Amino acid sequence: MHMCPLEWRYGSSDMRSIFTISNIVRTYIEVEIALMVGLARAGMAPAHCIEALKGCAEDLEPHEIYRLEEVTGHDIASLAYILGERCGECGRYVHLGATSYDIVDTSWAILVGRALELVKSKLSKILKAISKLAIEHRDTIMVGRTHGQHALPITLGFKLANYVYELSRSYERLCHVGKRVVKSKFSGAVGTMAAWGEKGFEVEKGASEYLGIEPHTISTQVAPRDGFAELISVLAILASQLDRLALEVRELSRTEIGELYEAEERVGSSTMPHKRNPHII
Amino acid sequence: MHMCPLEWRYGSSDMRSIFTISNIVRTYIEVEIALMVGLARAGMAPAHCIEALKGCAEDLEPHEIYRLEEVTGHDIASLAYILGERCGECGRYVHLGATSYDIVDTSWAILVGRALELVKSKLSKILKAISKLAIEHRDTIMVGRTHGQHALPITLGFKLANYVYELSRSYERLCHVGKRVVKSKFSGAVGTMAAWGEKGFEVEKGASEYLGIEPHTISTQVAPRDGFAELISVLAILASQLDRLALEVRELSRTEIGELYEAEERVGSSTMPHKRNPHII
Amino acid sequence: MHMCPLEWRYGSSDMRSIFTISNIVRTYIEVEIALMVGLARAGMAPAHCIEALKGCAEDLEPHEIYRLEEVTGHDIASLAYILGERCGECGRYVHLGATSYDIVDTSWAILVGRALELVKSKLSKILKAISKLAIEHRDTIMVGRTHGQHALPITLGFKLANYVYELSRSYERLCHVGKRVVKSKFSGAVGTMAAWGEKGFEVEKGASEYLGIEPHTISTQVAPRDGFAELISVLAILASQLDRLALEVRELSRTEIGELYEAEERVGSSTMPHKRNPHII
Amino acid sequence: MHMCPLEWRYGSSDMRSIFTISNIVRTYIEVEIALMVGLARAGMAPAHCIEALKGCAEDLEPHEIYRLEEVTGHDIASLAYILGERCGECGRYVHLGATSYDIVDTSWAILVGRALELVKSKLSKILKAISKLAIEHRDTIMVGRTHGQHALPITLGFKLANYVYELSRSYERLCHVGKRVVKSKFSGAVGTMAAWGEKGFEVEKGASEYLGIEPHTISTQVAPRDGFAELISVLAILASQLDRLALEVRELSRTEIGELYEAEERVGSSTMPHKRNPHII
Repeated sequence: MHMCPLEWRYGSSDMRSIFTISNIVRTYIEVEIALMVGLARAGMAPAHCIEALKGCAEDLEPHEIYRLEEVTGHDIASLAYILGERCGECGRYVHLGATSYDIVDTSWAILVGRALELVKSKLSKILKAISKLAIEHRDTIMVGRTHGQHALPITLGFKLANYVYELSRSYERLCHVGKRVVKSKFSGAVGTMAAWGEKGFEVEKGASEYLGIEPHTISTQVAPRDGFAELISVLAILASQLDRLALEVRELSRTEIGELYEAEERVGSSTMPHKRNPHII
Repeated sequence: MHMCPLEWRYGSSDMRSIFTISNIVRTYIEVEIALMVGLARAGMAPAHCIEALKGCAEDLEPHEIYRLEEVTGHDIASLAYILGERCGECGRYVHLGATSYDIVDTSWAILVGRALELVKSKLSKILKAISKLAIEHRDTIMVGRTHGQHALPITLGFKLANYVYELSRSYERLCHVGKRVVKSKFSGAVGTMAAWGEKGFEVEKGASEYLGIEPHTISTQVAPRDGFAELISVLAILASQLDRLALEVRELSRTEIGELYEAEERVGSSTMPHKRNPHII
Repeated sequence: MHMCPLEWRYGSSDMRSIFTISNIVRTYIEVEIALMVGLARAGMAPAHCIEALKGCAEDLEPHEIYRLEEVTGHDIASLAYILGERCGECGRYVHLGATSYDIVDTSWAILVGRALELVKSKLSKILKAISKLAIEHRDTIMVGRTHGQHALPITLGFKLANYVYELSRSYERLCHVGKRVVKSKFSGAVGTMAAWGEKGFEVEKGASEYLGIEPHTISTQVAPRDGFAELISVLAILASQLDRLALEVRELSRTEIGELYEAEERVGSSTMPHKRNPHII
Repeated sequence: MHMCPLEWRYGSSDMRSIFTISNIVRTYIEVEIALMVGLARAGMAPAHCIEALKGCAEDLEPHEIYRLEEVTGHDIASLAYILGERCGECGRYVHLGATSYDIVDTSWAILVGRALELVKSKLSKILKAISKLAIEHRDTIMVGRTHGQHALPITLGFKLANYVYELSRSYERLCHVGKRVVKSKFSGAVGTMAAWGEKGFEVEKGASEYLGIEPHTISTQVAPRDGFAELISVLAILASQLDRLALEVRELSRTEIGELYEAEERVGSSTMPHKRNPHII
């Protein structure tokens, strides 16, 4: 039985599917494969081990890793160990010279990148829908208000065009943060690439190209975390803009005002059957 | 496949069991029964409907409610409708005169109350464990530091006793917030008890006594939300205190210092087998 | 020329006067005097040094301290040095065995305590004013709304009584946090009272009684900081309640609704002379 | 006597001078002049009124405005009134068709823009200083740590180069937010430019060019506020990066570690003269 409301009540199935355990583990494996590609290009692993790893990792189930983690207390070490055992003579090249956070941070860059694309695609639909309404209602006169008081006339199209502008600024921010946060990290323990000797940048390049993302310029044991803080801020600002839009609809559907309504019929109250709530669909 | 890490990776099974959908719905039903008790005591429902409701609600599964909610868009209205249908002639007394938030807010008070008891019981164990260590190490000399610099001698017992004091202040706060947040709300639509005529306070009293919790002094359509803000603040302060303790253990187990260690053996790194990380168990 | 809007535009002169540099320094001196009282009671300083210190500290100006701080980089060390120089043979007992944070943390407890009293006294006036209005309007019928939609009738008195209840919960919180935050701290470097030998608790007791506040049960170099976090949370919750009240007045004075107004005449706009904004006085 | 620590204890005089009342009022006047330029270019005010306004506004003191505000309750209306009175026949063109937030929001864009330049210039110095150190210490071997435990060797240059990368990401963010926040707003009451008839965009263009900043694409009564939220986030992230750097210096100057020190001599404690605190200058 679920407990977390994101599992069933809130959120889209598209977004949920990115963050399931099985997709996270699948991404870890994708990154271990990318690393094998990097090692092979740098001449530190046999080229056939790329396909071998793909094969022997294919049916790995998350619970195998997390069962071993109960013993070792370390999820990525458990993953690397299991892949090592499964992949025969190629096993010794799995995770070679890497540190856990090469896998974890690169995986999170990939997952967050996919989530960002979803958010951008939904925001893009909202922008198109509001733009369309703004054009349709370019001449629909309504009262402009400040502090809730009648001020001077505006049009509904003008009101909506302001939301288009403001939300497009969020779209811009989502694009910028994506560039800073969707970056690979292959730099080994403490970030010095020492285990790969002179070949560090080659390993990083090969692995990153395989994944189609740029590596961070430099990193310690872990990739920089500032991008995550920025991401949360950017999403919070977007959420706050959408909240303002929703609140405006709610206010303009007050019984005394009645300028906007929600389209769909819903039960508005468990005790007052006449109620029509300003939920926006 | 889970997605939310609280479902499987973080959190205790005790805490999780409070917030499952099935326990939430079970609590909604508990509150509908309490309301029936209140109605019966006030002479607004036949006394036998209390047992009747218990019976006809017993095997109600959450998915029935949420399937109906997909049509009605209202979860509590769906619950009330299903209970009404199931309970024969007592059906018409189910949810009588109540508003959704009588059920929801009282349920959350109960659930949060149980969660608070769990937190308090764990904090109590931590307080006892640190107190015991503080007494054992009352004479274990160590250096006192300010800004990380050696200052003057202290004892480990003294250091730990400070944590006992600080954490006990959080325990006190948890007790206080509990008193403000664990309160029932039976006041009907817009909070006026109007549907129960002169009998409002009787209904509220009967229902609240059945649940063993005090009602809010007054409420609107919903119970006051300040208690939730306070709860989050109090938990954040507690978390920050525990973070300080954990960080202190981490600092004092630095390789150069080595005054404290974690007891258990764990894999510390996927690439550096000699590492011993200062996780606290 | 001021820059910080709290200096001139926002805030009351009562509140400002608590947090001026000169009052802060005055409070530091008050606490140094309290410490001298504690030392005298414990037999560690001559009794006449209490009056001597009061005298030689009387005309000390903050800029003397902050001028010396520019050299030493330490404000309290500068204060102690200056008092030591000024007070003749009693000079050697000034700040004896204390650490800077004995002075700073005890001073902040005093200052925050005074600020809390101001907030409580203002909140008490608000509570009385709203209670009075609630009683006056106990029979003033108005529409109750949920989601801004007309729902069922209430009275204005009922609406206001809800604010009385909610704000009184903040008053309660202010009382509780005061007990945790207004505490003295006299425990010397690293908090062990070591410089006072066996007499530590006597010094602490004497100094605290002079100030009329209870000491913390135990402290490190500094007093626990959780009380400040709690204080900020409690004030934020109060501010949010007052914001809800102000927003409700604003909404109910919308041109279409016009149920509440601000009493005073003000210029509502630099371009629209007919405007009447819903500021609340 | 000051109360706000930003007035005297924290902050630079450069930054303070931007946000004094007198500079804020000076900027309001700058914007009123820009508006007159816009009006003149659009043929809505005589060209000579630009110089006339500059002259009659020159010696306007903030207290004149705030004295009138005490009567009117509106600062910008007071400013416009006083300028109108002072400027003879040009007085009637002052603030013509504008709303208060044309002045306020454009002024804040200018002020925030200047503050941003200061922050960027300081960050640029920090970046150069750390880069220089990173190059000097490219071969200074030190231990790399994870969780505070010795892990594998790094160089001090490598450690510092990571800070250069991370801080340069903040520099990038400051540039981006500047583009969104430093924008003029000349759109009149409720943002429709209605008072300027067909000439709205001309007024906006003339005024904005005079100030050398781009106007917002569209605005309501006020300019979009998302840029301020973004600005605060970006500064908070920068502060958190600098905090990490400062904390690292503090940790590495622990008595047991002693790898880094602060250069300058300071008094470290009011009671422990041997103390050397890891303040960074």
